[in-house]
Amino acid sequence: MISKLIDNIKKTDAPIVVGLDPQLGFVPEHILNKYYKEMGYTLEAVGEAFFEYNKGILNATADLIPAVKPQIAMYEQYGIPGIICYKKTVDLAHEKGLVVIGDIKRGDIGSTSESYAIGHIGSVTIGDNKIKPFDEDIVTVNPYLGSDGVKPFVDVCNREDKGIFVLVKTSNPSSGEFQDREIDGRPLYEVVAEKVTEWGSLSMDGDYSNVGAVVGATYPEMGIVLRKLMPKTYILVPGYGAQGGSGKDLKGYFNEDGLGAIVNSSRGIIAAYKNEKYASYGSEGYADASRKAVEDMIKDIRENAF
Amino acid sequence: MISKLIDNIKKTDAPIVVGLDPQLGFVPEHILNKYYKEMGYTLEAVGEAFFEYNKGILNATADLIPAVKPQIAMYEQYGIPGIICYKKTVDLAHEKGLVVIGDIKRGDIGSTSESYAIGHIGSVTIGDNKIKPFDEDIVTVNPYLGSDGVKPFVDVCNREDKGIFVLVKTSNPSSGEFQDREIDGRPLYEVVAEKVTEWGSLSMDGDYSNVGAVVGATYPEMGIVLRKLMPKTYILVPGYGAQGGSGKDLKGYFNEDGLGAIVNSSRGIIAAYKNEKYASYGSEGYADASRKAVEDMIKDIRENAF
Repeated sequence: MISKLIDNIKKTDAPIVVGLDPQLGFVPEHILNKYYKEMGYTLEAVGEAFFEYNKGILNATADLIPAVKPQIAMYEQYGIPGIICYKKTVDLAHEKGLVVIGDIKRGDIGSTSESYAIGHIGSVTIGDNKIKPFDEDIVTVNPYLGSDGVKPFVDVCNREDKGIFVLVKTSNPSSGEFQDREIDGRPLYEVVAEKVTEWGSLSMDGDYSNVGAVVGATYPEMGIVLRKLMPKTYILVPGYGAQGGSGKDLKGYFNEDGLGAIVNSSRGIIAAYKNEKYASYGSEGYADASRKAVEDMIKDIRENAF
Repeated sequence: MISKLIDNIKKTDAPIVVGLDPQLGFVPEHILNKYYKEMGYTLEAVGEAFFEYNKGILNATADLIPAVKPQIAMYEQYGIPGIICYKKTVDLAHEKGLVVIGDIKRGDIGSTSESYAIGHIGSVTIGDNKIKPFDEDIVTVNPYLGSDGVKPFVDVCNREDKGIFVLVKTSNPSSGEFQDREIDGRPLYEVVAEKVTEWGSLSMDGDYSNVGAVVGATYPEMGIVLRKLMPKTYILVPGYGAQGGSGKDLKGYFNEDGLGAIVNSSRGIIAAYKNEKYASYGSEGYADASRKAVEDMIKDIRENAF
């Protein structure tokens, strides 16, 4: 799967991913009101509004980008209708040829992790039917439970040509509380990174592994170290834009081949029309504002991150 | 919320929780075939079969137990119909007066963790409607992202009188890979435990905190240490039964007041009829077998864990 992601990145010359993380405060009023009127103030109305909002952004940006990363929490927050919207978003992104990175951060003990892996990137067998319940291409995984929490995902990656990104160093302010603590003179995130390369060696796909890592844009000096520690690992970089990272912070995340990293922006793209810089698009033009924000992000990364 | 759980434990004199973790291989043929016939080999059929199976177990055991712990992965594995069954199971358990511990092991950066917290133990506001999307009473939380991943859950606990159990030392064989690594001479799980008491102090509910901890039954010597480190923390103990823990291993997890721990068993209860010991019940009597297994588990814990 990582080779498919790399193909998409080369085709677009854009190592970026758009985080489809809808929030009520981002969705233009005219979309919300349409569904409130039709369905009342319900979870179902929010699910439909989120989907129309996502569809607008996908229609306006799909030709520029290799992948999207829907954050399932934003959908799960609205219960089952929210999750129905998540699944419809995954399917629509696939129709547009995009790689879908499900930001689910799951992780559990062996057989339970296997259930998550099968449900999200694998398939269940019911009688003589093989069904892919969620069908993302890649998902994010939490490593706290160790190898037997992660390996079931790696097995499914091999079986179904899929991928994972394992949390190594997250972009949030308190990520250091545990991740930076020193173990035998090295921070925990390096110990995890070492495991990621070990797991990654079990699922190579060309020059890179199907087992990637999450390393936040907000810690560029750690990005440099982790890049070298994990040479065959693709790095998913959250924290660009709204969280404070910019193109020049990202130099260290790429390999010399210009590959090895993919940078996520969520609200900076999907809520661009709320940013002063793109305010002239207005809420009716929210999707065009997102397209312009994608173009600007790609330009920033091409000019400053290499 | 923890005081409600304690009330239920005192009422039943049973510090146990039944893990409602359905698998296709556990559900009796007569239930599966009924729904396959009606709905084909579909996710929907599995969702309905799981619910009938759970309902049988709940009807047979609810008067003996304080709480249930559905593992959402087993439902999520079957996509949206699976998650619909999860929600129906949560609601049915509530109707029976049980505390529902959603084993979701979520955890993300600040605002995203808040979405998970709101969706599972809180409420969303849509227009003038306040809706509780999943409405579990307590959920499990992964601490790898640090305080700003956990505190949004604590805030919701305070706002809505709910609870969480934070993963400290999990029951699986490779849990030590990261959790046991030494930081300034102490294992990571102790560093996490210290944080759990700190977070817990922000949400006390009587003698105990709404912020509990997960400590596996498979590591009893660590259970003793963690019990002392977190005196006001309720401990959720997985790993009893099928994973190898038994009543005598659990002494160290309880406080002198006989409280402080609640022990989970999943397949040992819900698939009891598949165990030689309860085979005479047959698959038609699976729910009665589960009741007998609950009675035996309670007896084991009352006689050996105190």
